[in-house]
Amino acid sequence: MIENRVKQIWAEGRPVLNGWLSVGNAFVAEVMAAQGYDALTIDVQHGALDYSDVLPMMQAMRASGVVVGARVPWLEPGIIMKMLDAGALQVICPMINTAEEAARFVSFLRYPPVGQRSFGPSRAVYAQGGNIAAEANDRVIGWAMVETRTALDNLEAIAATPGLDGIYVGPADLTFSLSEGRLAPGFDRDEPEMVEVLRRIVDVCHRAGIKAALHCGTPDYAARAVAWGYDMTTVSGDFRLMADAATDSISRFRELTGTAGPEGTVET
Amino acid sequence: MIENRVKQIWAEGRPVLNGWLSVGNAFVAEVMAAQGYDALTIDVQHGALDYSDVLPMMQAMRASGVVVGARVPWLEPGIIMKMLDAGALQVICPMINTAEEAARFVSFLRYPPVGQRSFGPSRAVYAQGGNIAAEANDRVIGWAMVETRTALDNLEAIAATPGLDGIYVGPADLTFSLSEGRLAPGFDRDEPEMVEVLRRIVDVCHRAGIKAALHCGTPDYAARAVAWGYDMTTVSGDFRLMADAATDSISRFRELTGTAGPEGTVET
Amino acid sequence: MIENRVKQIWAEGRPVLNGWLSVGNAFVAEVMAAQGYDALTIDVQHGALDYSDVLPMMQAMRASGVVVGARVPWLEPGIIMKMLDAGALQVICPMINTAEEAARFVSFLRYPPVGQRSFGPSRAVYAQGGNIAAEANDRVIGWAMVETRTALDNLEAIAATPGLDGIYVGPADLTFSLSEGRLAPGFDRDEPEMVEVLRRIVDVCHRAGIKAALHCGTPDYAARAVAWGYDMTTVSGDFRLMADAATDSISRFRELTGTAGPEGTVET
Amino acid sequence: MIENRVKQIWAEGRPVLNGWLSVGNAFVAEVMAAQGYDALTIDVQHGALDYSDVLPMMQAMRASGVVVGARVPWLEPGIIMKMLDAGALQVICPMINTAEEAARFVSFLRYPPVGQRSFGPSRAVYAQGGNIAAEANDRVIGWAMVETRTALDNLEAIAATPGLDGIYVGPADLTFSLSEGRLAPGFDRDEPEMVEVLRRIVDVCHRAGIKAALHCGTPDYAARAVAWGYDMTTVSGDFRLMADAATDSISRFRELTGTAGPEGTVET
Amino acid sequence: MIENRVKQIWAEGRPVLNGWLSVGNAFVAEVMAAQGYDALTIDVQHGALDYSDVLPMMQAMRASGVVVGARVPWLEPGIIMKMLDAGALQVICPMINTAEEAARFVSFLRYPPVGQRSFGPSRAVYAQGGNIAAEANDRVIGWAMVETRTALDNLEAIAATPGLDGIYVGPADLTFSLSEGRLAPGFDRDEPEMVEVLRRIVDVCHRAGIKAALHCGTPDYAARAVAWGYDMTTVSGDFRLMADAATDSISRFRELTGTAGPEGTVET
Amino acid sequence: MIENRVKQIWAEGRPVLNGWLSVGNAFVAEVMAAQGYDALTIDVQHGALDYSDVLPMMQAMRASGVVVGARVPWLEPGIIMKMLDAGALQVICPMINTAEEAARFVSFLRYPPVGQRSFGPSRAVYAQGGNIAAEANDRVIGWAMVETRTALDNLEAIAATPGLDGIYVGPADLTFSLSEGRLAPGFDRDEPEMVEVLRRIVDVCHRAGIKAALHCGTPDYAARAVAWGYDMTTVSGDFRLMADAATDSISRFRELTGTAGPEGTVET
Repeated sequence: MIENRVKQIWAEGRPVLNGWLSVGNAFVAEVMAAQGYDALTIDVQHGALDYSDVLPMMQAMRASGVVVGARVPWLEPGIIMKMLDAGALQVICPMINTAEEAARFVSFLRYPPVGQRSFGPSRAVYAQGGNIAAEANDRVIGWAMVETRTALDNLEAIAATPGLDGIYVGPADLTFSLSEGRLAPGFDRDEPEMVEVLRRIVDVCHRAGIKAALHCGTPDYAARAVAWGYDMTTVSGDFRLMADAATDSISRFRELTGTAGPEGTVET
Repeated sequence: MIENRVKQIWAEGRPVLNGWLSVGNAFVAEVMAAQGYDALTIDVQHGALDYSDVLPMMQAMRASGVVVGARVPWLEPGIIMKMLDAGALQVICPMINTAEEAARFVSFLRYPPVGQRSFGPSRAVYAQGGNIAAEANDRVIGWAMVETRTALDNLEAIAATPGLDGIYVGPADLTFSLSEGRLAPGFDRDEPEMVEVLRRIVDVCHRAGIKAALHCGTPDYAARAVAWGYDMTTVSGDFRLMADAATDSISRFRELTGTAGPEGTVET
Repeated sequence: MIENRVKQIWAEGRPVLNGWLSVGNAFVAEVMAAQGYDALTIDVQHGALDYSDVLPMMQAMRASGVVVGARVPWLEPGIIMKMLDAGALQVICPMINTAEEAARFVSFLRYPPVGQRSFGPSRAVYAQGGNIAAEANDRVIGWAMVETRTALDNLEAIAATPGLDGIYVGPADLTFSLSEGRLAPGFDRDEPEMVEVLRRIVDVCHRAGIKAALHCGTPDYAARAVAWGYDMTTVSGDFRLMADAATDSISRFRELTGTAGPEGTVET
Repeated sequence: MIENRVKQIWAEGRPVLNGWLSVGNAFVAEVMAAQGYDALTIDVQHGALDYSDVLPMMQAMRASGVVVGARVPWLEPGIIMKMLDAGALQVICPMINTAEEAARFVSFLRYPPVGQRSFGPSRAVYAQGGNIAAEANDRVIGWAMVETRTALDNLEAIAATPGLDGIYVGPADLTFSLSEGRLAPGFDRDEPEMVEVLRRIVDVCHRAGIKAALHCGTPDYAARAVAWGYDMTTVSGDFRLMADAATDSISRFRELTGTAGPEGTVET
Repeated sequence: MIENRVKQIWAEGRPVLNGWLSVGNAFVAEVMAAQGYDALTIDVQHGALDYSDVLPMMQAMRASGVVVGARVPWLEPGIIMKMLDAGALQVICPMINTAEEAARFVSFLRYPPVGQRSFGPSRAVYAQGGNIAAEANDRVIGWAMVETRTALDNLEAIAATPGLDGIYVGPADLTFSLSEGRLAPGFDRDEPEMVEVLRRIVDVCHRAGIKAALHCGTPDYAARAVAWGYDMTTVSGDFRLMADAATDSISRFRELTGTAGPEGTVET
Repeated sequence: MIENRVKQIWAEGRPVLNGWLSVGNAFVAEVMAAQGYDALTIDVQHGALDYSDVLPMMQAMRASGVVVGARVPWLEPGIIMKMLDAGALQVICPMINTAEEAARFVSFLRYPPVGQRSFGPSRAVYAQGGNIAAEANDRVIGWAMVETRTALDNLEAIAATPGLDGIYVGPADLTFSLSEGRLAPGFDRDEPEMVEVLRRIVDVCHRAGIKAALHCGTPDYAARAVAWGYDMTTVSGDFRLMADAATDSISRFRELTGTAGPEGTVET
């Protein structure tokens, strides 16, 4: 039977914690799936990976019960449907700027008569069981990313797209676009105008009866987003967590031993 | 020209900080090589990887200047020489229990007339440059792992092996073997008898004119080992750093939002 | 010299038997290519594979003489041309709903002046030999999949597309679309209205001077399709054949030994 | 917690049905793991695969609960221990000809103080959970393959090896060796002298208090072996099941349509 | 800091020598990067490779300092942006036929406010350093391929596209298109009408203030192109160089030994 | 039917021309197999590849009819037998120093009653056809590499090993060993003492009734070796041919255009 624990958590009134995978490696995915995230999303857009990595990663996460998703590279039907056939229960599509684009995205996610997804869930059958033909339209969650000024201008229309489950906010691109390149892209925005935008988005979503998700860098910011009403937050990701922890470990060693690293200076 | 920065650091009287790679992925290797380790060792023994991963990992680390090494699965000449041809400047061989085994290990590392390494450094030529035939015997560092009671009994003989550069201590296996399975394997031993063993090894090594290295779990323990005289310490590794950081991040989120993870309980 | 045995078989008045590959593995492809199919198609749409698997699969089938084809994920020029450069002699494109889409598909398959395929048959040169620039337009077979109500409404127009070789019927999606989701998708339809549709398609194709192909689940249904006039039938596929044979073998063992399988019940 | 359902089935007095994987592909493994085998063994010796395939295959089978094993290429410690660290709960070692070889095999499988396995179950931790240091020696099943005249001459001594769980009979090699090349290698031997040998082996095993397993080609022969007392039987394998099913399907099509295959003759 | 040596060479008034990679292998890339090219381009369009090969190839070339580029399969945003995130500093897009297509291409290459590239340079950060958000728009070089009659008709308009760095001429397709299939596709055209076209393109580019590049088969023809004003020339490529050198070596051996090759005739 | 064209060429009194593959890529293998070599050997010892590359490479070469071989990393039975099961018809084993080692090597190559090779030619069946159990012992060619002073001292005894087909001379290692490191390793030795050794080896082989092969860098030296009586010569290899051809092409461009390469100097 197809299970989508994300919908269940929402039904229980709780926010979803999503993890993020940018490394194309099934062992990394298996390790991350054991840490306690509700959902894990493979970043096929900016991650250092492609479909050939996604398949073994999804297989490696299957036993954990974590809800597996994918961010696709672009609004391109080929890769979107391949993610679904591979077993994704969440699909995040970047750069949805208009209601028309949102509608096309939804059409790629849904079987007839709702959409134009082609039937052939080769691996999803093994990953999800159940009656995929009958149930997938209900269970698969589709997120449109709002991350440009144009998208923001069309926010209400996008949010009103029939069959769309939610809006996923990419704060790096959104900030970049809104500031026309003046503000450096990045997560966890503190600028009042950005906070206002982020709060506006969650309100528009909820009024439209859909969910809102925010990509965050830290659990503390994610908790703020939850307080604003965000239904799902992503917090950091595989290689960033690793790199930061390595830096901390190295700095501590350098400090304790009074030694310098490769560049010749103590890094404390 | 072949450079082995590890030897240079020792010449400058400083301890070497080694990182550890168990994930078979070149992007992880490239990220880790940017964090500030002096050396990074690919664990072909217990890591989730094999030769097909090692090659692109070594290529991905080349630009960083970090000293690339490999722990081989066992005292088997085929894989040891493949690691050297791929470009390893350090080789760590597990479970060296006798001087005869140590001598065989050294023979696999060195070109004639010192050893029996076969000539054909296909990729090492590109990674290291220089005159490999003339210089590799000097530049490649060979570590024999001492990690059993038998090895400890033969410690002085092993340390006296001509051409061996150092002894690398595997505290998990060593504790397991010495306690005959009573003590759980693990790093960063605090048992007085284990500390004594660890200190004895570094002393035997230094009397024999070779180096000593210790595998550690934390920078704090590594700093203790450096104080005992260890010339190189390994601190944690790629997927452990990532997993621990993910756990911390998740716990913080659960705590701040008052929510429970997949198992239904708040994990604080 | 480029050979396309499929065209030869038709010239001899016989139907073509096509096999189907959904597993991304060159050994599976090599084994399947030894079984006696006239043609084998790699399913890049719903199969658990992508381009990185296609290349070695096509190489592994080359010695067999089987006609190698690919079903592409969608009407996207990048992947269609990559399949041709890799050596595909048949290309099946899903979800062609209009004559305009069919014409675009054909344009991606053909070199100038017929179409807009870019020249650079890097591997096809080795796989096919001959004068690819001069002969490929003739030898490559292009199939438009008709699998929606819209496509059926446009059937005659699609079939009239200059340069299109045939229509490939996907009965799962077609049934799904025609029944607006009421009938479960699947092969080998027995519903009178579906049989009528399938027979109508082959008639329209033949009147338009092109071929018709049907995707089938069993050789018995394929034989019926051949009797209706279908020029090519696909029968089952790699992993389905394997899974069904495994189930039969396990059931037989359970029955003979009176034992139960993992779920605790005798599966006979 | 480490579970080994194979031991549980034996405790319940039933024979174990083992499947066989020769294709290096995680999707094939996932599909096969869904069919109802008690255990599945990856053939790293004769299969078309190596360690780089084993890891994702084991990951893909994890969710199914099937007991995952590996046949290693030879009595070589490096690869044996890598199989265990990757998560294998059964290891089958070919060509064990003497008790000394059997003892060495066992030593590679077991942690101290029983054997010399090195500690570092990187992936096994995620696959199996539990306290691997404490429990793995009990849970991992080690099979010595008896498949030569020499091994048969030493049968009782091999069977008496402390820590060995069972003897796995390779009938192809055994027949080849016993007949000095006169009888063609193959499974499911009907020669009275071979049947006698097969029955003798199971008796010697049981008298020594260990298990016996037989590699079979068909469920019918496996049922005979179970009747002789064999505790585990392997029946056919992934690509053989697929190839046989493909041949049947093709023959049926050729017969029904009265057409010939590639070689020009009707294959019925 | 992001460096693009190609721009530097131009600033110094010299032509750029570009190499070409069609083999999907990181060792081949590392070897080619050591030979002395100014830039190397991975051919994701016609090469026997895809994204899964591009990533390790780019990593393997990083240490060499060569400027890494990619030719993408088509004007498709997903793969174009993935090339940039992987670290490409040059992107060549095939079959740009109109100014509108050129503008879309540029929009995929540039961050806001210039274009619509999405921010997330996961690997580029490690490959290039510097402030990618601020500097990438300046440093990334975008080439539109002119290779059809339509493109030639629109040449001035294409060349005037804001943000386009240059026009890259594909002489094989261009000849094919201009001659409507009469002239065989190939490099190094000697037909007066083709030479005139090639010279016209460079003039139009320079008048528009952008660069011109030509794909060549030999250094002698490339030198002619440089004399015509071409700012960058590509000369041959990995597997062509290898195949030609192998043929020469084999012919020489056959000639010297008076022996015949596989086809039974002396190949001199 | 198993064919070994190498034996056929010898039967016709001609020398065999062997090519060499160090790049782990099936497209490179397919291209090289189209150039006219009699045989091609994959270098699993010093090449930048392992078993996971060998399988698709052998598949890609199958259609060409070239005789496929492998040099194994060391005298280790696991990998030797895997090469045979993958389809190798020639196996070259490095560093055979004694008759005992040669005999062990032969035993790994041959089925009973001659040797101890295990039966299970999973892929070889598809690559070679025929009755492998009956014919492989005759068709597989085993080469022992003589490349040390010890091996030279034992030359007659090694050459007398029953079942050994020939001695393959590795001039780089042999020179290195004989000169105790004074002479740089390399092919195509001109030192009189080395020429004498090379001529002595071929004479000893022929007196013992076996073949002799020499690894060469150029066709001219190979022709000399053929004149000395060598039955097979290897000439250069994939990436060396490519690198040399690239260097020539670059130098020619630099010379014609009067430009300097990356290091700032004209490389003529």
